[in-house]
Amino acid sequence: MGYKTVHKVRIEWGDTDPARIVFYPNYFRWFDAACHQLFDDIGFNKNKLLDAGMSGMPIVEAHAEFKRPGLYSDRIEVEAHAADVKDKTVRFEYRVTRDGELLLTGHEMRIMTRPHPDDPKRLQVIPIPEDLRKKLEG
Amino acid sequence: MGYKTVHKVRIEWGDTDPARIVFYPNYFRWFDAACHQLFDDIGFNKNKLLDAGMSGMPIVEAHAEFKRPGLYSDRIEVEAHAADVKDKTVRFEYRVTRDGELLLTGHEMRIMTRPHPDDPKRLQVIPIPEDLRKKLEG
Amino acid sequence: MGYKTVHKVRIEWGDTDPARIVFYPNYFRWFDAACHQLFDDIGFNKNKLLDAGMSGMPIVEAHAEFKRPGLYSDRIEVEAHAADVKDKTVRFEYRVTRDGELLLTGHEMRIMTRPHPDDPKRLQVIPIPEDLRKKLEG
Amino acid sequence: MGYKTVHKVRIEWGDTDPARIVFYPNYFRWFDAACHQLFDDIGFNKNKLLDAGMSGMPIVEAHAEFKRPGLYSDRIEVEAHAADVKDKTVRFEYRVTRDGELLLTGHEMRIMTRPHPDDPKRLQVIPIPEDLRKKLEG
Repeated sequence: MGYKTVHKVRIEWGDTDPARIVFYPNYFRWFDAACHQLFDDIGFNKNKLLDAGMSGMPIVEAHAEFKRPGLYSDRIEVEAHAADVKDKTVRFEYRVTRDGELLLTGHEMRIMTRPHPDDPKRLQVIPIPEDLRKKLEG
Repeated sequence: MGYKTVHKVRIEWGDTDPARIVFYPNYFRWFDAACHQLFDDIGFNKNKLLDAGMSGMPIVEAHAEFKRPGLYSDRIEVEAHAADVKDKTVRFEYRVTRDGELLLTGHEMRIMTRPHPDDPKRLQVIPIPEDLRKKLEG
Repeated sequence: MGYKTVHKVRIEWGDTDPARIVFYPNYFRWFDAACHQLFDDIGFNKNKLLDAGMSGMPIVEAHAEFKRPGLYSDRIEVEAHAADVKDKTVRFEYRVTRDGELLLTGHEMRIMTRPHPDDPKRLQVIPIPEDLRKKLEG
Repeated sequence: MGYKTVHKVRIEWGDTDPARIVFYPNYFRWFDAACHQLFDDIGFNKNKLLDAGMSGMPIVEAHAEFKRPGLYSDRIEVEAHAADVKDKTVRFEYRVTRDGELLLTGHEMRIMTRPHPDDPKRLQVIPIPEDLRKKLEG
């Protein structure tokens, strides 16, 4: 239940810190990239969303629990899963593994917005379009 | 209860994305910077921890809830608070505001480690030293 | 000759790599931030440029020569200087110091653009507006 | 003459700025990643260098000339080329293309260092080891 994809990442030198492990905000960068790949996979590339007058799916919550550190030159897999698709929110769950070993888990809650009709500088929350919701549900 | 500090940030062009708002992983970068500033304030600069044979306070959990977007050239305040200091963990809580308006809240759980005596490539969890704990408790 | 400003930076943990020195692309991030501060100082905040239908001053060349490494928790000064202002280009020169000691020098060449009238997805090079040029020349 | 490799990158949302183009310091991040891949290819992974007591090949100069902007979700190729290998320096040249179209060129000058025998906090320049030089020369 819920579309899943896997985003592959090589941990680069600049992603790691003097403790020789990944500087943790980078994992959220990779969650975001995996989420974008998931949208690509199901035919909703961000460019398409922007062209359709939506501003994408802004984040309302982000969370991660770290089990083992990622190291320079590791090849990791970031699994993204549209785990819970509601009218106005989607919960994306993430699992990051290295050769099958779990490094961390996390999730994001996202909503859908468009520029507000009365003030294009503000965002307005809108229901997730039916066709997108069906694709996310897998 | 618990030491508090405020880390000031100017949102730079490169911190924002095509939706003209902060790319969210940057907030965790600023949580981390605020946490480092808190350690500096209480006399435990990371360099001092490293020189004392500790590898610092790695993260085991990170969380954020986003209320309003930060925009290019905003000046924001990241308040860091050592909210719950236990024998082996510390919970740091964060509040990010712009001119007093709340943009997001979050927290990190951190532990203390040193290189493992049997294998310097692994980390060993250690109790938080008494003097550091007292300072964190404010 | 040419407006100058100084942008102050504290080197954060996540800016440094396992060699315990700044991961070098970050210096270009700080060049860019110093350049934005220079525009702010002279009354041309990027938001104002964007609202006036310009897309800012995209980069056509960037260069840096590194003398000494920056380290975690160093406080550095990034001096930006509008060193050569021509009709369609500006050369910004940078000097990064730590307590007066030179860490690196660099420069950027920038041009001015706006969305192309025939195709808003392309950029069109335009002359630097007279009022901006005067301010840059100091 | 000189070893060449190609590093593939997908431009992510967070790599782009409100002008909807790549925030330029990221290109240097990708130069660095391509350089690391080149070392991997020829059997000199950075971890191996570090374990051999070297601190890698720090940068002394970095340069880029930008022709066309990279956009979100573009797939680009970063060609790295060990173009000029001397006793103590290597010049790496970069070409970034999208579907064969040139986006930018650049170069880095790098030297080889190890922790100074008299003061492990300083770096000492050393000649590039013979076996590494041969591999770089292709």
